[in-house]
Amino acid sequence: MTDTRPLPRVFSSDNTAGTSPEIADAVARAVTGPALPYGADAVTGRVRDRLREIFETDVDVLIVSTGTAANVLSLAALTPPWGSVLCHRDSHINNDECGAPEFYTAGAKLVPLDGRDAKIDPDLLRTAVRHKTGDVHSVEPSVVSVTQATETGAVLTPDELGTLATITRDAGLRLHMDGARFAGAVAALGRTPADLTWRAGVDLLSFGATKNGTMTADAIVVFDRALTPELSFRAKRAGQIAAKNRFHAAQLDAYLTDGLWLRNAAHANSMAARLRHGLNAVPGVEPLGTTDANILFCRLPQPVIEKLLADGFVFYHDRWEPGVVRLVTSFATTEDDVDDLLRAVGDATATGSR
Amino acid sequence: MTDTRPLPRVFSSDNTAGTSPEIADAVARAVTGPALPYGADAVTGRVRDRLREIFETDVDVLIVSTGTAANVLSLAALTPPWGSVLCHRDSHINNDECGAPEFYTAGAKLVPLDGRDAKIDPDLLRTAVRHKTGDVHSVEPSVVSVTQATETGAVLTPDELGTLATITRDAGLRLHMDGARFAGAVAALGRTPADLTWRAGVDLLSFGATKNGTMTADAIVVFDRALTPELSFRAKRAGQIAAKNRFHAAQLDAYLTDGLWLRNAAHANSMAARLRHGLNAVPGVEPLGTTDANILFCRLPQPVIEKLLADGFVFYHDRWEPGVVRLVTSFATTEDDVDDLLRAVGDATATGSR
Amino acid sequence: MTDTRPLPRVFSSDNTAGTSPEIADAVARAVTGPALPYGADAVTGRVRDRLREIFETDVDVLIVSTGTAANVLSLAALTPPWGSVLCHRDSHINNDECGAPEFYTAGAKLVPLDGRDAKIDPDLLRTAVRHKTGDVHSVEPSVVSVTQATETGAVLTPDELGTLATITRDAGLRLHMDGARFAGAVAALGRTPADLTWRAGVDLLSFGATKNGTMTADAIVVFDRALTPELSFRAKRAGQIAAKNRFHAAQLDAYLTDGLWLRNAAHANSMAARLRHGLNAVPGVEPLGTTDANILFCRLPQPVIEKLLADGFVFYHDRWEPGVVRLVTSFATTEDDVDDLLRAVGDATATGSR
Amino acid sequence: MTDTRPLPRVFSSDNTAGTSPEIADAVARAVTGPALPYGADAVTGRVRDRLREIFETDVDVLIVSTGTAANVLSLAALTPPWGSVLCHRDSHINNDECGAPEFYTAGAKLVPLDGRDAKIDPDLLRTAVRHKTGDVHSVEPSVVSVTQATETGAVLTPDELGTLATITRDAGLRLHMDGARFAGAVAALGRTPADLTWRAGVDLLSFGATKNGTMTADAIVVFDRALTPELSFRAKRAGQIAAKNRFHAAQLDAYLTDGLWLRNAAHANSMAARLRHGLNAVPGVEPLGTTDANILFCRLPQPVIEKLLADGFVFYHDRWEPGVVRLVTSFATTEDDVDDLLRAVGDATATGSR
Repeated sequence: MTDTRPLPRVFSSDNTAGTSPEIADAVARAVTGPALPYGADAVTGRVRDRLREIFETDVDVLIVSTGTAANVLSLAALTPPWGSVLCHRDSHINNDECGAPEFYTAGAKLVPLDGRDAKIDPDLLRTAVRHKTGDVHSVEPSVVSVTQATETGAVLTPDELGTLATITRDAGLRLHMDGARFAGAVAALGRTPADLTWRAGVDLLSFGATKNGTMTADAIVVFDRALTPELSFRAKRAGQIAAKNRFHAAQLDAYLTDGLWLRNAAHANSMAARLRHGLNAVPGVEPLGTTDANILFCRLPQPVIEKLLADGFVFYHDRWEPGVVRLVTSFATTEDDVDDLLRAVGDATATGSR
Repeated sequence: MTDTRPLPRVFSSDNTAGTSPEIADAVARAVTGPALPYGADAVTGRVRDRLREIFETDVDVLIVSTGTAANVLSLAALTPPWGSVLCHRDSHINNDECGAPEFYTAGAKLVPLDGRDAKIDPDLLRTAVRHKTGDVHSVEPSVVSVTQATETGAVLTPDELGTLATITRDAGLRLHMDGARFAGAVAALGRTPADLTWRAGVDLLSFGATKNGTMTADAIVVFDRALTPELSFRAKRAGQIAAKNRFHAAQLDAYLTDGLWLRNAAHANSMAARLRHGLNAVPGVEPLGTTDANILFCRLPQPVIEKLLADGFVFYHDRWEPGVVRLVTSFATTEDDVDDLLRAVGDATATGSR
Repeated sequence: MTDTRPLPRVFSSDNTAGTSPEIADAVARAVTGPALPYGADAVTGRVRDRLREIFETDVDVLIVSTGTAANVLSLAALTPPWGSVLCHRDSHINNDECGAPEFYTAGAKLVPLDGRDAKIDPDLLRTAVRHKTGDVHSVEPSVVSVTQATETGAVLTPDELGTLATITRDAGLRLHMDGARFAGAVAALGRTPADLTWRAGVDLLSFGATKNGTMTADAIVVFDRALTPELSFRAKRAGQIAAKNRFHAAQLDAYLTDGLWLRNAAHANSMAARLRHGLNAVPGVEPLGTTDANILFCRLPQPVIEKLLADGFVFYHDRWEPGVVRLVTSFATTEDDVDDLLRAVGDATATGSR
Repeated sequence: MTDTRPLPRVFSSDNTAGTSPEIADAVARAVTGPALPYGADAVTGRVRDRLREIFETDVDVLIVSTGTAANVLSLAALTPPWGSVLCHRDSHINNDECGAPEFYTAGAKLVPLDGRDAKIDPDLLRTAVRHKTGDVHSVEPSVVSVTQATETGAVLTPDELGTLATITRDAGLRLHMDGARFAGAVAALGRTPADLTWRAGVDLLSFGATKNGTMTADAIVVFDRALTPELSFRAKRAGQIAAKNRFHAAQLDAYLTDGLWLRNAAHANSMAARLRHGLNAVPGVEPLGTTDANILFCRLPQPVIEKLLADGFVFYHDRWEPGVVRLVTSFATTEDDVDDLLRAVGDATATGSR
């Protein structure tokens, strides 16, 4: 199970990166002296203040230890057990959380919808929000969950988000945003966090810090503050209220200070752009979809894939069609890392074409 | 909600302490370079190795973010939804986890039992393990959960544990130990961790690191390794498998290195002993029960309680009988902290008796 | 498992009785011709109309197949998963439903309270409704469940109910009534069903038909009709919306026609009164508590208990203190049945005293 | 909500039919005298004996009040909460039970698969049983649920069932059969119930009596008897163990006597065949798929659909493609009913074509 080898060439996920030095420093500084437990400490309060400033409104904040917890606590607060969660077929909540949404919601049903670039197709959503509403023989459409940026590295534009949000609101449903890569979307779009969330109708946001620089801390940003008491009770029952919460809060505090969260995300995005630009120039390599944020899909010849793996590069390649590869950059990816990979792809392609 | 005042005189809980410097250093060192996510990293492997050495057997380890999660994942793996968990009436799982056991177990029932020093009375346990077994109209006795050290600061001796474990095993039930203060019990008893757990029949142990020095990391020590796959699936669904698990693991790694965990616990115990010794000498103060570990209960005159609170001391006093106070020390409590409190009690008592 | 012997002398429970002939006739008449499924049929509509008349208000009605289902669907609609249900320690929901309340509520916690005659003590309730409210570390007091008549055969008087209801309402909690023997209480008290339920503040009533004459049909009477959609979805998910609901409805329709439900209950009550009167006259027999409805507890000498069992009488005797016996009458109990038992007790007592 | 009009021309579902006279008689006969509750009575024992004879093996039997309950109790006993249930996209458990499977299984996930005639495609099943097995980030394939007869009225042949069962068993999964119309499949195939269930590898069968003649009773036939205790506890928690179970058992007893269950099913099948034969002769009407049992799909011109509805015929037509109509016969459908419908279709078609 344990792999102790160094991982110099890892493009499998942004969750393989470490943490930002500023964050490590902040955690070290949080060490000394007593503090009230369970989030009643000063650092936790400061995180809430920073998020209120960033989102330009009076949000509440729930600090949790994983993105999964942020997602599924949010869903549980937005749907009854007999409700359905409308989401994209490729979404993380639908594929990669082992039924955590069903566990936390006491058995609500995910309804997967299709759409390009892992974005929910608005026409399909229009139909889905009306599907058998008020019929006790069927789960009741209750919440729409969008992912920003999407699982394929695209971002929902304000217009696209607005369209989905309008359909959602007009049908009386609630709107959740899985912001696992929310910082990347903000960086890519150059719009305010407020425009990309509550102004568009988002009720709850999984803020998504772990992939972008924190160690073990993530957060739910609560725009509909009437949900806060319920979220708090649910978080406690879930084992998600840390006694020494300040050590989570310290990570987020540093993450939100002086724009570190956006700098990290912009860097990850630019590394993906550099990678895509480089791959575009390699004959036989076909970048796929859109790469707005830090995820890039492309098609590679099978011998090239095998050569890269043999060279020690780490990435996913066996989960989609044969030949389709996913490459993910992070705040810690360097230009050398990217160029190293590009060189290897170039070499392998040249060899493979002989 | 947020209290930003300094807390120099806090005896309310060991969860108000920070972390050990060695642990902060280890987390900082875990920062650099990529690592495989979700516990496949080298540090996580090392924690498992250390625990195997400490427990002298091939345990598995599940790292989680809170003691609540450790407890309730363990219970969920040991009881079916129609089972009952036999525990002490004063136990943390019964009182302080907001129904987390019921949530994780999909509705099992906690059956509270009485007993001195927050230890389950063996005679009551003998009756409870047989209560309506095999009767579909009643929950089925399935698991016994003991707390070590107990909620009142006493420790289960090997004999006491053995008695409870024998009753449990003879009735075909499973045995869980909430080791929120397990290190304190090991330090107090001078027995091996193995003797106090699996050799006595414990199936799963909530290891209990957070109160004794780590920041945000706790662990389930799995003695019955057949339970590991189930625990892993349950942990994922609970949002308790951290992507960057190495940052939790690094805390535990340092905690288990060179006996830090036992040194911390021994110190906390000795501070409680110093406090008890000092209080014994104060007229009008009545220490209650047994103080083996780092929790001390005593009875104080009401004016003394009020004077201490006014002086800025922080402790619980309104949860039991009037006049009953709980004082908790930690690895971070100093002799000066204790003596400061003793002096204040002495002064207040003298004043109050005038 | 299966006992094929005749049961002429059964006082173990009112659930051993068959059904009323009027009800059997009604079911037979419901046989012919098609009808809309899932409660959209005319008979179901008639049951609702009858209950509206009986309760003098616009109730909704959910027909279910067991009293357990009626109880736990009601509780699930009145408490969040992090809530607590305050009930008597001896209540059916606490002891005899195998954790069904925890299952349906997704893990809410029953908080058992004491009190004479299986009635919740108002002083204890006053404390319990305030217990750690708003504290995420503890379940939140959410609903009070009273049983009418109680598990020991007493009835809550309008005053007693009013006191409990006022405490409940003033604390902002909801009120459920387990009316497993509601008809018996109405018959005993001579008050209107409305006075004994919604006028006193009851939100949901488990109507309790099965023990008093129907075959397989019970019902939730919904006074707070805002709960109806939620109850309907929950009932469907629970497998409690019968396709051919008219066969359940037909039972209730006959049960509610021409006062059959009250006649049956009055008869069961009078048989218990006859039994108590007779036992009072037997030396060495001590009736216990109050017998308002059709359950009677008494203390018998152990040899008498054994003689009665040997004679083929069926009753519970091993669940409380030694020597304590429960005797239950029903709509089908005859005066001869009672006199037969009284004679046997008299004989056994006389023999036993020699 | 309530429709009190007569329903002479109802082809919407077999659940609109009443009950067989033999069954009504049996229930009336079960009325008199006391009986042990909760299935310990003689009639319940007789049902088990009859099913053992019919299935030629020592089955256990759990009597429940709805087919939904039979299905979801079965699934809950066959999959852990982190498991997935592989089923056809059109299956009742996937579409028509309001998330009851998710509720009873504590959050397992249904994985819908495609295939002709509402039968799972074996190739898709081969892939699905291996999907991410042993990966904690994904639900674990745990049980396959097949429907017999299918939602479109086709039956799984012994060969087809054998193929699916082999894939299931080879992958270490369990096999559930939703036998909502099992009797129809037995009647259509002329094979023994044993061949169509446990000899092919079925672990649990939802027997499916309600649509075919009983009032309110259905049953789980337990081939893997090691599951019986768990099923019993789960049934109790679900409010599915009736106190006066004999009234459910009496229905099944009569249903299983002298082959009534197969006679009813054969009649319903023959009525569907008569209908299909008649529709085949109508120009402009296109019967769809296979009609082995008592469900028939066909395509009708929209004006014909509207004319039939105006004439008082009741059927589903708005749930699939425009123009697609479902017609269901039952044990109570008469030749006149069928001919009446055929005549109306003929008339409407002739009119419509003008």
